[in-house]
Amino acid sequence: MREDAEPRSRAEISRRRLLGAAAAGAAGYALRSAPAAGAASGRDVDVVVVGAGIAGLYAAREIARAGRSVAVLEARGRVGGRTLNHPLGRGHIVEIGGQWVGPQQKRILKLISELGLETFKTYNRGKYVDYRNGIRLTYSGRIPPTDPAADAEAEAAIVELDSMARQVPLDAPWTAERARKWDSQTFQTWIDGHMATPGGKKLLALGIQAVFAAEPRDLSLLFVLFYIHSAGSLENLINTAGGAQDSRIVGGSQLISIRMARRLGRRVVLEAPVEEIVERRGHAEVRSRAGTWRARRVIVAVPPALAGRIRYRPIMPALRDQLTQRMPMGTVFKCIAVYPTPFWRADGLAGQATSDSGASRVTFDNSPPGGKPGVLLGFIEGEEARYWETQPAAKRRKAVIDSFVTYFGEKARTELRNYFDKSWAEEEYTRGCYVGYAPPGVLLDYGRHLRAPAGRIHWAGTETATVWNGYMDGAVQSGERAAAEVLADL
Amino acid sequence: MREDAEPRSRAEISRRRLLGAAAAGAAGYALRSAPAAGAASGRDVDVVVVGAGIAGLYAAREIARAGRSVAVLEARGRVGGRTLNHPLGRGHIVEIGGQWVGPQQKRILKLISELGLETFKTYNRGKYVDYRNGIRLTYSGRIPPTDPAADAEAEAAIVELDSMARQVPLDAPWTAERARKWDSQTFQTWIDGHMATPGGKKLLALGIQAVFAAEPRDLSLLFVLFYIHSAGSLENLINTAGGAQDSRIVGGSQLISIRMARRLGRRVVLEAPVEEIVERRGHAEVRSRAGTWRARRVIVAVPPALAGRIRYRPIMPALRDQLTQRMPMGTVFKCIAVYPTPFWRADGLAGQATSDSGASRVTFDNSPPGGKPGVLLGFIEGEEARYWETQPAAKRRKAVIDSFVTYFGEKARTELRNYFDKSWAEEEYTRGCYVGYAPPGVLLDYGRHLRAPAGRIHWAGTETATVWNGYMDGAVQSGERAAAEVLADL
Repeated sequence: MREDAEPRSRAEISRRRLLGAAAAGAAGYALRSAPAAGAASGRDVDVVVVGAGIAGLYAAREIARAGRSVAVLEARGRVGGRTLNHPLGRGHIVEIGGQWVGPQQKRILKLISELGLETFKTYNRGKYVDYRNGIRLTYSGRIPPTDPAADAEAEAAIVELDSMARQVPLDAPWTAERARKWDSQTFQTWIDGHMATPGGKKLLALGIQAVFAAEPRDLSLLFVLFYIHSAGSLENLINTAGGAQDSRIVGGSQLISIRMARRLGRRVVLEAPVEEIVERRGHAEVRSRAGTWRARRVIVAVPPALAGRIRYRPIMPALRDQLTQRMPMGTVFKCIAVYPTPFWRADGLAGQATSDSGASRVTFDNSPPGGKPGVLLGFIEGEEARYWETQPAAKRRKAVIDSFVTYFGEKARTELRNYFDKSWAEEEYTRGCYVGYAPPGVLLDYGRHLRAPAGRIHWAGTETATVWNGYMDGAVQSGERAAAEVLADL
Repeated sequence: MREDAEPRSRAEISRRRLLGAAAAGAAGYALRSAPAAGAASGRDVDVVVVGAGIAGLYAAREIARAGRSVAVLEARGRVGGRTLNHPLGRGHIVEIGGQWVGPQQKRILKLISELGLETFKTYNRGKYVDYRNGIRLTYSGRIPPTDPAADAEAEAAIVELDSMARQVPLDAPWTAERARKWDSQTFQTWIDGHMATPGGKKLLALGIQAVFAAEPRDLSLLFVLFYIHSAGSLENLINTAGGAQDSRIVGGSQLISIRMARRLGRRVVLEAPVEEIVERRGHAEVRSRAGTWRARRVIVAVPPALAGRIRYRPIMPALRDQLTQRMPMGTVFKCIAVYPTPFWRADGLAGQATSDSGASRVTFDNSPPGGKPGVLLGFIEGEEARYWETQPAAKRRKAVIDSFVTYFGEKARTELRNYFDKSWAEEEYTRGCYVGYAPPGVLLDYGRHLRAPAGRIHWAGTETATVWNGYMDGAVQSGERAAAEVLADL
């Protein structure tokens, strides 16, 4: 990937990066912004896919492979959805969207390999930092030994949650024996009813914030249990080595989408936000700002909250529409601080911190494979992110760097070369990350409408996955399923 | 109002009714569907109001009275939003949307009077029916004596809730001393923690279902307490005489909007769904399917869930957008059965029933003022409504009539002349009733964005009210406030 001068707009960043990646890759790659006005050719296809994130592109790839015609309409000037590479100069990149893969995520790992991409381990050597009650400790092992009673309680809670999670059927969480009870309460209510130590509660809440970018009070207990089961265990969700944060992708996770898009070529149309889908006798019309496509089937591969903002003719059934009113996106800033070197490594630190205060309470070493430059990644999540949305950017930057200084020392300020962050809630075509989650009552009364096709319209996106829901792996599973649905019908 | 033959479409029903009402009313009334294409005149105004429900029309009225120019853009072919008259023949109507007013609702009562409308008492003589555990009892008084322990517990819960509700500041519920605790749990969690008898729990749940058309598990305890406080007390919400169901409007509640629209005349534009609002230097452009208007200020007077489906340029701030992802609409069928006479009155019954089972668990005598024809009104609410959304209309009709037979005897079937029902979740420009409610966590982190203007855009609608939130009275209050905001800025 080439070094870019500071680009003027996000669309431009993306387009240039995309084209840069294409130029650096195999020949025969072409991506058009939109076909010439009035050009009918290519606008009558078997399937239109709405959204060129991993789910939509994967579905399109399966459809193309089956010999069917497909067009992918993407609202933005780039592909990748919630994955986004950001150039650091000298050919390095850092991701400001989803980035990690874990060893149990078979589908995304297979896709990465098929696309000729490689993974490398998230930096995980040395000690972790824990900051609680104003005291900084470094430690090894999974749970910080700051407060043994709290930590033991958190461990016990994790075991209990894993056991409950296994009772939630992945394809129909609402049929769990205790679904009604579990979907009638928030996760905070479960914490308050099952944990006694303030420290243990805070630790578990931190885990939930880190996984969902939402607060324990925002989430249905049943939804959290489903999510845990879909990932195998809560450890899988929160662990670095062996868990969901195990590995990264050389060149950045957006390459997954960029490479799929490259192979799809002119089938992918950028800057084509879909505004309306009209069912006709025998086909559907998909109306975008870049023109209208005609298809026998449509796959909408965007989160439910965004799918609800498309106009449908006929209108969506009541429960499908009400579902889209009920799965809000989380709230997160992903914050990147760049240093000449990963100085914390020399201090014997892994770059991973957990904290009970400050703007950023979870950090990682996010340096490129060679460790140059050094990159600290900090998340601002849930309520804290909602607070920082109301504050000026400069104040937020200072608060994040203050957090990093608390965890890793003064060099986090004095050696800082570059800082940037991204709020996904500010992105029109995402409106929050990591995922659309379910408050209480939603899975019970609306869960069955997450994947049920409505006429010619099918649904993909990681929110519809039964395995690794919320992750890139779930996006692949959802694309695979939606493609199989439409191929069976064509 | 004239008797209509069965019209072909909802828009047509509405248009004809509207025009009928106009013809019957004062002279000088004119309503246009949309101005001629290209006509610039009248499209450059001080204020555009989006939505011709009570909130929007009231705001427009205040703005017009202040000598400012205003246009009201309404998506449908009728005014009235969640109020809707339905002709019964011979000049009678019944409402299939919001209909009641109560004696504490000063604003709507004043408006009704100003518009030359009259109210009459909801029929409330004779005994009530309670159906629980398969047993039907008739009784007088507020709470059925079916199960004394359960009833006493429900009474005590109501007292406690009222007392808690008074601690919730109406203009800032998130500042209540126990806001964090109350917004971290569902109302169901409160029931489970504070009530012991299954009967008492069911009775309270029935009250919540009847008020919100949602389940106790769907709602934040803090939101329920705010809502109670905004109405004065839980009794005010659930009572007929003296409460929110005290009185009705002669000619139907939609007349409130129809008369306001008549006086606004050509300022009200029907069939003009707003798709985009673009802020420019010094003004905003409001783009609808009927053309583009230009205004110095805009008032969006639709529920948050629908406001989130408008495209904004610049896009909405993150938290305002995320709020609109987090206030879903309730789920209700309003079911109307028409009989030659209100036969239950002759049996000494008020026509009001409560039940722990069946499709419709809350009923009212909804006959016109003279008692001819006889009209039974039944609601299907919350989970039950979500179930019936998945069933054929004929089966639903049978289930509702079965409920009425259980409560009022075989005549409810044998004397039935006409039956119709309405699911507000199936209405594209409402997508649920009665109201947009808050699940846990929403008021705490997003409540302050309900009314805060975004640039030139202000917010109205009963969901933004601090008094009688969710009611027609709250709609008036919200229109009054929004009009004052923009008038202060013009």
